[in-house]
Amino acid sequence: MTEGWSKKIYLQLSEPSEEDNASLQERVLQGLVQQGIEEKVQIDLPTLGRLGALCQASSWKITVLLGYDGTLWHLLDAESGDTSHAHYGLCVDLGSTTIIMELVDMNSGQVVGRESIFNPQIAFGEDILTRIFYTKDQRSRQKELQRITAGGFRRLMERLSLKTGIDVRTCASMTVAGNTTMTHFLLGLNAFGVFQSPYAVETLVPDPIRGSELGIPILGYVYCYPALANYLGGDILSGMIATGIADREEISVFLDVGTNGELIVGNRDFLVAGAGAAGPALEGGVVRTGMRAEEGAVDYVTTEKGRLKVHVIGEGEPRGICGSGIVDLLAEIFLNGWMDLRGKLLEEAPAVFRTRQGELAVEYAPGLYFLESDIEEFLKTKAAAMTMVEYMLDAIGLSMDGIGRFYVAGAFGTHINKESAVTIGFYPDIPREKIVSPGNTALEGARRMLLNRGNREKTQEILARMEYVQFGAVEDFLHRMSAAQAVPHTDIQKFPSVAKKLAERK
Amino acid sequence: MTEGWSKKIYLQLSEPSEEDNASLQERVLQGLVQQGIEEKVQIDLPTLGRLGALCQASSWKITVLLGYDGTLWHLLDAESGDTSHAHYGLCVDLGSTTIIMELVDMNSGQVVGRESIFNPQIAFGEDILTRIFYTKDQRSRQKELQRITAGGFRRLMERLSLKTGIDVRTCASMTVAGNTTMTHFLLGLNAFGVFQSPYAVETLVPDPIRGSELGIPILGYVYCYPALANYLGGDILSGMIATGIADREEISVFLDVGTNGELIVGNRDFLVAGAGAAGPALEGGVVRTGMRAEEGAVDYVTTEKGRLKVHVIGEGEPRGICGSGIVDLLAEIFLNGWMDLRGKLLEEAPAVFRTRQGELAVEYAPGLYFLESDIEEFLKTKAAAMTMVEYMLDAIGLSMDGIGRFYVAGAFGTHINKESAVTIGFYPDIPREKIVSPGNTALEGARRMLLNRGNREKTQEILARMEYVQFGAVEDFLHRMSAAQAVPHTDIQKFPSVAKKLAERK
Repeated sequence: MTEGWSKKIYLQLSEPSEEDNASLQERVLQGLVQQGIEEKVQIDLPTLGRLGALCQASSWKITVLLGYDGTLWHLLDAESGDTSHAHYGLCVDLGSTTIIMELVDMNSGQVVGRESIFNPQIAFGEDILTRIFYTKDQRSRQKELQRITAGGFRRLMERLSLKTGIDVRTCASMTVAGNTTMTHFLLGLNAFGVFQSPYAVETLVPDPIRGSELGIPILGYVYCYPALANYLGGDILSGMIATGIADREEISVFLDVGTNGELIVGNRDFLVAGAGAAGPALEGGVVRTGMRAEEGAVDYVTTEKGRLKVHVIGEGEPRGICGSGIVDLLAEIFLNGWMDLRGKLLEEAPAVFRTRQGELAVEYAPGLYFLESDIEEFLKTKAAAMTMVEYMLDAIGLSMDGIGRFYVAGAFGTHINKESAVTIGFYPDIPREKIVSPGNTALEGARRMLLNRGNREKTQEILARMEYVQFGAVEDFLHRMSAAQAVPHTDIQKFPSVAKKLAERK
Repeated sequence: MTEGWSKKIYLQLSEPSEEDNASLQERVLQGLVQQGIEEKVQIDLPTLGRLGALCQASSWKITVLLGYDGTLWHLLDAESGDTSHAHYGLCVDLGSTTIIMELVDMNSGQVVGRESIFNPQIAFGEDILTRIFYTKDQRSRQKELQRITAGGFRRLMERLSLKTGIDVRTCASMTVAGNTTMTHFLLGLNAFGVFQSPYAVETLVPDPIRGSELGIPILGYVYCYPALANYLGGDILSGMIATGIADREEISVFLDVGTNGELIVGNRDFLVAGAGAAGPALEGGVVRTGMRAEEGAVDYVTTEKGRLKVHVIGEGEPRGICGSGIVDLLAEIFLNGWMDLRGKLLEEAPAVFRTRQGELAVEYAPGLYFLESDIEEFLKTKAAAMTMVEYMLDAIGLSMDGIGRFYVAGAFGTHINKESAVTIGFYPDIPREKIVSPGNTALEGARRMLLNRGNREKTQEILARMEYVQFGAVEDFLHRMSAAQAVPHTDIQKFPSVAKKLAERK
């Protein structure tokens, strides 16, 4: 049995008699003590109300479901006979774009089902800021977004039930990893503090809350990952649990580039965290032909016989380019010598054309152009991310050599070609085995929390020793960022493998 | 400030700033720590949701209301400015016939208002047993009685609000003292175990529960007094707290005769409890012209110049006789020599007549007869009560001389004439100052619990060391009871003051 946020325990109780006429409540609690449950357990009243009839109908052999509210165990449900094998929980990655929910077997730790949907909050704004402004100081709108979000959770639950045949409403617990804004929206709170100085939000460490209070029809409690700060949310803390960085001697860099960029450097002795605006260009919003990684997106690019060769998701006609495609594209045109280290295209290079507006562009697929201004936007993003890393390492007094693992979390890290990312200076030029793409660490951390509530104490310990750097407040950050816009870097010495590749292609 | 089940605390918080951008939750919790609140406090989500706007509108000067769930403090409500002077709670005597509710000023401990109604459960049976059978094994009926009971609570709350001008729905806590059946009905549980051997009930120690879960519209929690056994309920435990018997060196007898008879003998070193059917005749159900102590009831009786003289509640025409009247009546006709020690009337005595059915009766008021069979019923009741006391003292090895105080709780004890009760052998013949009528100890204990949650630990300590004697299971109990039906007792030596009075009247 895992030490998760719920327990399911088979009890063989004795029938009341003259010798032992303990109350039903006492009888069940004694049965739990006999099964090794030392902590105080409260039997929820509706359950106590139907427990007597159930015990009689079941010859006093029942299975009880316990859920933890963060302080106390609650007996949430009881079933006839031994059903302890059927014990499930839910974990959620609550992203601003996508919500992913997993149904987890609490006995084995195996994922039984996984479903995802677009976050229904999108109806109130594609980007987070629009949603924040929509709900600002308007209690009814905060509640509206809460309901909408819970509605998304319910849809995922329904799909999981349909797919697996398991009634997921019988789950006793759900863990949720989301950034600070997402957590506020889920709880129906005003998220304006996330955006506005002095960045005092409503809660960084939400208490576990009964699902029914949120309109999430599970039997027990919803546990939201705590956050360190406005821009360093529960999704990142979840990543800490998923990667185990905070437990190891080796020093790691953890970089999550999505809508924002979040960064943690540290090990079991120290942890420094920071966040900055370092993501938008990756999501396709800034680049003209940029799009999400879906059918029709160019997702990787190579050069064959001096010409660009692209791969399209779904193998059909290309409609645009996603993050991994962009990184490949820039790496290729740079290595081919079609773009200089300032990100300027060379007019005479193959595949480079001048547009009607007089701007240079690469035609990466028939009729699809990647403009010089797109390159500039993208390089700003990569510069922001790399500057965060460089700045923080400098502040700590570490060089890149001292880093044991360089984690690039999220969808970006998963799909990007490592070599291309190093080539354009998005990743540092370190031994490739040190660069790790841990995938969806928010979801994985949520699952680990679900299966081991000891991780709750661990997040508290992590929060207590984590130092937060607000990059916006750092003076020479912008100066450094401008220097980092070069491809791969103004100081090519820092990228020896790229220098070598350039020499080879020439 | 009393250490009750709720706290109301004025906080002068600092506005968030660059230097201190703690979350709203953290800010309020820190404010509470500064006010000396050491325990963990959870801010309820709906309150947290509106707290930000309230703080801003109140220049960060707010008053918070905390309620205790038995394990954790909850921040239930917040108001602008300093409203800590307006802090109220509710306590309830949940009787099977009458429900009494008090509104208590939590700062001063003063009772601000008191209201009572007939228990609306009466619609499902005048006596408890009918109600128990009505709900037996029928979940929907258990819920129906729960709703009905909560409805009574709501009516009392409305009346208190009207009378006092205080919105009692803003109370954070309510304490309830009721017998085991009443507590089960309030919680919507099956009370059949109270009645049926082996007397395994659903709960003896209910957990505090959110008022909203019971349909009781307070902001916080309802706390029901725990019980020792089916017939030794929370009302009696409440009496222990009200009288302080369990804290003193002196040994006390605590007798509560109502629908049932409950008895406790003990002090700070030992406590023995028992219960038996020893009350019905006092409530008017058994005696033909018996009635509740309301307008038209004969409530005391004297003898003047050889003739009975009665007092009538409301000073109008007599309609019947209540408990205190009966005790007086029996004492007078006994002392006047109109009734022998077996409870038989003397046909030749004044005011004694033979009825049409051939039975002798006393005409205690014009046209109102107290029959010999009424006397017999009543003497059975007093015999049951006194036998419980005698039996228990014998079992412990104590004589009546060793008793420091003899408490007669409830309405019966309050209204009965001590001398008359001794005369007929209902009370022991001990120095009269030792006989104490503490009044409604259930209500008083509920109030004390409300104002001092330390009493919760005290009840647990009392329960842990209280021994329970089931009189029904005692062999020579019936034999003893039959002996105790004499007036005042088969052994007149035990009642020297009565012997003296008899001699005087003759």
